[in-house]
Amino acid sequence: MSKTVNAWAATSPHILEPITIERREPDDNDVAIDIKFAGICHSDLHTAKGEWGETTYPLVPGHEIAGVVAAVGKNVRDFKVGDHVGVGCMVNSCRTCDSCKDGEEQYCLKGNTLTYNAKDPKEEGKITQGGYSNTLWSIRPSCCEFLITIPMNVAAPLLCAGITVYSPLKHWGMGPGKKVGVIGLGGLGHMAVKIAKAMGAEVTVFSQTLSKKDLGIKMGADNYYATSDRSVFEPLKQSLDLIINTVSSKIPLTLYLTLLRRDSTLVEIGMPEEPLSIAPFVLAAQRVGVFGSMIGGIRETQEMLDFCGEKQIFPEVETIPASYINEAYERFRFVIDISSMESRAKI
Amino acid sequence: MSKTVNAWAATSPHILEPITIERREPDDNDVAIDIKFAGICHSDLHTAKGEWGETTYPLVPGHEIAGVVAAVGKNVRDFKVGDHVGVGCMVNSCRTCDSCKDGEEQYCLKGNTLTYNAKDPKEEGKITQGGYSNTLWSIRPSCCEFLITIPMNVAAPLLCAGITVYSPLKHWGMGPGKKVGVIGLGGLGHMAVKIAKAMGAEVTVFSQTLSKKDLGIKMGADNYYATSDRSVFEPLKQSLDLIINTVSSKIPLTLYLTLLRRDSTLVEIGMPEEPLSIAPFVLAAQRVGVFGSMIGGIRETQEMLDFCGEKQIFPEVETIPASYINEAYERFRFVIDISSMESRAKI
Repeated sequence: MSKTVNAWAATSPHILEPITIERREPDDNDVAIDIKFAGICHSDLHTAKGEWGETTYPLVPGHEIAGVVAAVGKNVRDFKVGDHVGVGCMVNSCRTCDSCKDGEEQYCLKGNTLTYNAKDPKEEGKITQGGYSNTLWSIRPSCCEFLITIPMNVAAPLLCAGITVYSPLKHWGMGPGKKVGVIGLGGLGHMAVKIAKAMGAEVTVFSQTLSKKDLGIKMGADNYYATSDRSVFEPLKQSLDLIINTVSSKIPLTLYLTLLRRDSTLVEIGMPEEPLSIAPFVLAAQRVGVFGSMIGGIRETQEMLDFCGEKQIFPEVETIPASYINEAYERFRFVIDISSMESRAKI
Repeated sequence: MSKTVNAWAATSPHILEPITIERREPDDNDVAIDIKFAGICHSDLHTAKGEWGETTYPLVPGHEIAGVVAAVGKNVRDFKVGDHVGVGCMVNSCRTCDSCKDGEEQYCLKGNTLTYNAKDPKEEGKITQGGYSNTLWSIRPSCCEFLITIPMNVAAPLLCAGITVYSPLKHWGMGPGKKVGVIGLGGLGHMAVKIAKAMGAEVTVFSQTLSKKDLGIKMGADNYYATSDRSVFEPLKQSLDLIINTVSSKIPLTLYLTLLRRDSTLVEIGMPEEPLSIAPFVLAAQRVGVFGSMIGGIRETQEMLDFCGEKQIFPEVETIPASYINEAYERFRFVIDISSMESRAKI
């Protein structure tokens, strides 16, 4: 038994188009979601284009999913029809390893199930299909932990971009008295500025030019530098407690590392395809380091959404109809209005 | 006024030879040391050969210095003639910045004074000259914190190699229940094995071949792997709490990073000349990182020497006469018997 639902899918690395996909019939443990909005994340582009390992086509991207509960299975106690819910980057994990027990499902030692392009644990031979679709349900066998309750006023991109910056800011203890550097003011960077500022930290943005300076200051940046002018680095040496690098192209990391105070960290979340190149001397000079960080756990994602709801933090987005997806992939950062999908399938 | 003392110096990047150097007359705040032994550290080679920035010739290397107090200035209270003392990699620092106040003089924000090839703060236009010499005294204006009391049974190389591995093992909390990986079993690596084991950690050595396995096990390694066999890595994934990389040539760091448990660190102390190349995905996969670390503070160096004295940890060395220095530079790891120096200068 399966259900035919509307979706937009990458049918090749070159194009996304409207198709119908078969989702299995929801069971007694599932929460069925009417998807209202799906953020377009840079990961969607990388995966759709086959740039991050193997992609199975057709692929329905989308892991910043906001919707309303349409139906619940009879075993579901914690969600009811009409609840506003979200699904982020993961839909399952082993839930028994040390990482899962610590609420860090993103680091599941047995490998979690990503929201799209992952082996579907419930349907042999199929991959998970994401949120550029009008319906989704929990693919897990027995519980709903991968569903997030989202405040009405908070939008989909928090479920990937928001948590991706919130988690390292929290993990490395940013707050009042701390100074955070944010490299890049795109989808991740602008959220990092808003969230770091809301946490009470002083925020310094590094961007290629000053073209987005007014925007950055409005979002909460205390300082904003154009990195095309290398003279900006010298006075900032050993001044920052954390640097979040959101840029996926090659940047002079060694130079940024000189801006860190002793025992501080630069966190890579931009995921460039090329390896990072780092001069070992600069790491030793003030005992600084480069870490990676990947999204955040489900508990932390809920915490982040509650924090953003309370602090009224909204991502800057442009809402688009599904028909604009291919153009949006050339630009950035968008949320798809799922109601605009063509009615090809009856559901 | 100055004193002429015997030394062996790099007179060019290609050779070390016996020379005499002029050291200033010791003053009321100085402790004069009869140097008994000087370790040959890999840093000596790099600096003598001009591979680490600019080297001023002639250069007397040596920053693993063990000797006996021969005389003390009238203001000196904490050392007396006959004390066994050591001098490590630093002879001065600002002593007022945050790093110095924290006892982390190695990260002095104004720049500390290294034992050799550094601008001498007391003698305008001269560089500091190290321990391949029969006499040395404190070059500092007012106190003796850069002198270390060394237990009789502990040898010179602890003052650089020992502290360079002790400091990160301590900083990252190694002890019972923790698993440490050590890459390379040379001057730094063998000390890392001995000290990590004495701290109570489980120690795994990664070496190119098994040629030094018996030696490694004897020194305290619990596991020993030849990395030429890549199949050794798979079963060790996500098993280590810290990796100390002592190798200065290029190694597949990304592979080693997969061996770290979540939130763990690989520390670079080998200082390769080429930049490190690191795949960002592997950093994100388990929120792991690469840090640098440089020697240790004076307080920590004393603590390390006391620890090694108590635990009877000795470096593995071959003691050589000064005339063997050039050959030793081609091999490794040696301690120079300073008494073998030719008596060119009367002191």
